[in-house]
Amino acid sequence: MISAENPHTTTSVPDLSSSHDFDFNLVDYLSQRQAVVEAALDASIPVVYPEKIYEAMRYSLLAGGKRLRPILCLAACELAGGTLDMALPTACALEMIHTMSLIHDDLPAMDNDDFRRGKPTNHKQYGEDIAILAGDGLLAYAFEHVAICTQQVPAERLLKVVARLGHAVAATGLVGGQVVDLESEGMADVTLSTLNFIHAHKTGALLEASVLSGAELAGADQHLLQRCSQYARNIGLAFQIIDDVLDVTATREELGKTAGKDVQAQKATYPSLWGIPESQRQAQRLIEEAKAELAVYGEQAIPLLALADFIIARKS
Amino acid sequence: MISAENPHTTTSVPDLSSSHDFDFNLVDYLSQRQAVVEAALDASIPVVYPEKIYEAMRYSLLAGGKRLRPILCLAACELAGGTLDMALPTACALEMIHTMSLIHDDLPAMDNDDFRRGKPTNHKQYGEDIAILAGDGLLAYAFEHVAICTQQVPAERLLKVVARLGHAVAATGLVGGQVVDLESEGMADVTLSTLNFIHAHKTGALLEASVLSGAELAGADQHLLQRCSQYARNIGLAFQIIDDVLDVTATREELGKTAGKDVQAQKATYPSLWGIPESQRQAQRLIEEAKAELAVYGEQAIPLLALADFIIARKS
Repeated sequence: MISAENPHTTTSVPDLSSSHDFDFNLVDYLSQRQAVVEAALDASIPVVYPEKIYEAMRYSLLAGGKRLRPILCLAACELAGGTLDMALPTACALEMIHTMSLIHDDLPAMDNDDFRRGKPTNHKQYGEDIAILAGDGLLAYAFEHVAICTQQVPAERLLKVVARLGHAVAATGLVGGQVVDLESEGMADVTLSTLNFIHAHKTGALLEASVLSGAELAGADQHLLQRCSQYARNIGLAFQIIDDVLDVTATREELGKTAGKDVQAQKATYPSLWGIPESQRQAQRLIEEAKAELAVYGEQAIPLLALADFIIARKS
Repeated sequence: MISAENPHTTTSVPDLSSSHDFDFNLVDYLSQRQAVVEAALDASIPVVYPEKIYEAMRYSLLAGGKRLRPILCLAACELAGGTLDMALPTACALEMIHTMSLIHDDLPAMDNDDFRRGKPTNHKQYGEDIAILAGDGLLAYAFEHVAICTQQVPAERLLKVVARLGHAVAATGLVGGQVVDLESEGMADVTLSTLNFIHAHKTGALLEASVLSGAELAGADQHLLQRCSQYARNIGLAFQIIDDVLDVTATREELGKTAGKDVQAQKATYPSLWGIPESQRQAQRLIEEAKAELAVYGEQAIPLLALADFIIARKS
């Protein structure tokens, strides 16, 4: 894990660890949850013949990262009264899917990126053919993993989770967002609604699926699912706004990937539409609204409230 | 649908339509089942915004083909006492997954093919970026489609089908087979066991999943599943042997794709190891053994027996 993504180095954001009562420490929480997720991911894909493809999948899956999607899934499951064990296979599947999307997005035919999480991208390390297959393998295995490794969850609920994950990745989600993103590149007149479409699908859909699948695994009622959905949409959009801001303000060392790519590719971004101060204000507003959705659940919602704060306070 | 793949043109193989009692006509059967599958596939993916990705997915999904995997799935479901409706969403999902594998295999970084089913390959028509995403979209949607569109099947059984499909595509199946295939290209000393590994995974795994998921949807017992598994492994290997033979003996017009690719790429094939006559004998033996597995089920097994014959009699 690279240092910029290690929660122990985020102590320069002191309000994160003291912004809530009930003695909740986000830095410790993230650190503990990341360790749980890392161990589960590591165990999820052993290396067997043909070793190269398993190594390529593990190379990107275990390259660190904030593990935000798995942690959101676990936290939402607990908010809805479930256990960590119920949600851990789905949490891992979300990270496999996210990793697939990064591997394929980095390909020369797509964003053509050489660095990701401080290391050469998958195709730089293993070649384009293996990178395409590693993505396919991770995507397919994500569904198998949910179906065979989840314990103590009724099959009906698990099928809903399978459907939700598929919907979040397919043309109705991540893939659709990436297509519009590619189409919009270099265009001078990208509207706010197009930009919102791109990010609601490219980033938002999987973040929302992370929160909702966690809640669903624990049998959340319609009321809680609706609040979780609004929470997730808000933090998803705020996440993307901050991503755009960091692309302008952060260094490659902080990001672990090429910085300034958006400007170079003439991509429409929130800072390019609104400027940086207004982008930060909008992100803050979205986070406040997200927190308000879940505040009614009191102490049980604290991890998700703190995670919302983390989304805009993060440095990478 | 191109003429070489239209069952009405296969009447030059008269034994197919008269090799069984009970008045079973394979040509009519294939034609009727292909029509059912085509209609279901056509309805499964409507075109909405962003249109380009839906069109790209439909371009390859609806480009004809024998629809062997869906038809095997439907037939196995019926053999096990189920209905067409129970298996149709899974049958479509199998074709979506198969189509994804063709789109990605044809990419320049992989087999670099310009023609497939008599038309330009997906990346030739839409560009590499869209072709990668169309494959990802089809793969993800396949799982959603099974989970949300299947009726009258208990959730526990559907989850097993989800797991089986994932296993057949991931590094444990199709992806793993393709990796070893890529590694073996141009190598002078590919052994029979490596060749068998490649095809058992690259082609066999999804064919086996087609038969077994169909049987599983109808609640087949362990005994029937085992016989279906042996049947499917045999026809899968025979299918690949005949594929290799056709690559040498058929024209591009008959195949709808570039012929002679294996020789050109110095690929190890069954004809290169055994010669053509012995390859045909081995395929015939596998088909006879496959049929023997299911013959005990009498009239109900006739479609699967006839499909086994079709596998070696086909001209494309």
